[in-house]
Amino acid sequence: MSRKEVLVLRDLLGSNKAVAAEIRQQLSARGILVLNLISSPGSGKTTLLEKLSEMLCPEYSMAVIEGDIETERDAERIRAKGIPAWQIMTGGACHLEARMIGRLAPEIPSGLDFLFIENVGNLVCPASFDLGESLRCVLLSTPEGDDKPKKYPKVFSTSDCLLITKTDLVPPLPFDQERARKEALDINPRLMTFAVSAASGSGMKEFVDYLVSRLHSLRRSHA
Amino acid sequence: MSRKEVLVLRDLLGSNKAVAAEIRQQLSARGILVLNLISSPGSGKTTLLEKLSEMLCPEYSMAVIEGDIETERDAERIRAKGIPAWQIMTGGACHLEARMIGRLAPEIPSGLDFLFIENVGNLVCPASFDLGESLRCVLLSTPEGDDKPKKYPKVFSTSDCLLITKTDLVPPLPFDQERARKEALDINPRLMTFAVSAASGSGMKEFVDYLVSRLHSLRRSHA
Repeated sequence: MSRKEVLVLRDLLGSNKAVAAEIRQQLSARGILVLNLISSPGSGKTTLLEKLSEMLCPEYSMAVIEGDIETERDAERIRAKGIPAWQIMTGGACHLEARMIGRLAPEIPSGLDFLFIENVGNLVCPASFDLGESLRCVLLSTPEGDDKPKKYPKVFSTSDCLLITKTDLVPPLPFDQERARKEALDINPRLMTFAVSAASGSGMKEFVDYLVSRLHSLRRSHA
Repeated sequence: MSRKEVLVLRDLLGSNKAVAAEIRQQLSARGILVLNLISSPGSGKTTLLEKLSEMLCPEYSMAVIEGDIETERDAERIRAKGIPAWQIMTGGACHLEARMIGRLAPEIPSGLDFLFIENVGNLVCPASFDLGESLRCVLLSTPEGDDKPKKYPKVFSTSDCLLITKTDLVPPLPFDQERARKEALDINPRLMTFAVSAASGSGMKEFVDYLVSRLHSLRRSHA
């Protein structure tokens, strides 16, 4: 990159960071656990959210912000589950930024438990943009292959938890869960790891229990 | 984006375009068909190249430029097939740029038939960077879902051909080839479309025949 490009990138990331900190402070104080879901296209983010809506609600409440380059498709899928959803269309941009979330913050209902942000399908660029989340989750689906953490390290190094998704496809797919997990933990030893199938429900209870415990921790720390 | 960001992006794309045009002119004049393969992580680009090496060689010769953020893994897989491969590690950048290819151009052997460039796994950003290719191919694997073309339109609008990959996984995966193809053709009616499985070999002969016919067209136009 040229010096001018580096300077613009630094400005962009600096101003994003300030907006994100403000969002995190406000939504945490309101007792809302905000999650940023990052993965490649088609790793199962929307299907995971559909399954979570069945498992969390009505005991807990949730809402979803959907990030896509084009189309309102994912928000429509979430709304069909009776869950409030906002669609952000980035119009070409390869990631969400904190100011896009900040514009929606006044619309977030009071008394909400979980706010999920489904980022644009991209395993690279979204990792550089803090959205004000309390938890960042990276999804890696088994068809993508167990060699991805070291090839795309930033998203693994900046996440709080890793979800290996679509585990119902192994076998026949040759995906070594231990290899993927070990590579990810080599990059980031504090990652919480889960292996789930939203289709079969396998592993979902452990992930839901983790989300609920993180919600309670957040509320204790702001009590 | 701010005005400064837009200006930097315009400079970057402008200078990339000029370098790409020079690469295309030089390599086409040498009779080399250059392909730029773009897809999400784990859509099967490297496995496709392994299969192509078995089907094209030794009748034709090929070489591969591998783009990855980190690791030399993909180039090692290609070299294990006896095919020359160069690894470009972008060190964080989410796409290849023409100048990265230009630096390698002097090393490209004379008498080569096909030069495949495997871009960084990312369905978004690589679409904006011409690498000097003669053919751009977008891969969409069946586990990613048949709803992706309209969600990620730019790569489909700028490609010459679409490869639906991993067709051996349908069923059990619910992927409607006709829906995916129709969405892609709505965006770009001149797309050539193929449905392949590098694992079973299904559909590969049609794609190989297309590559060979494009090589001959290139050579006739430069004769």
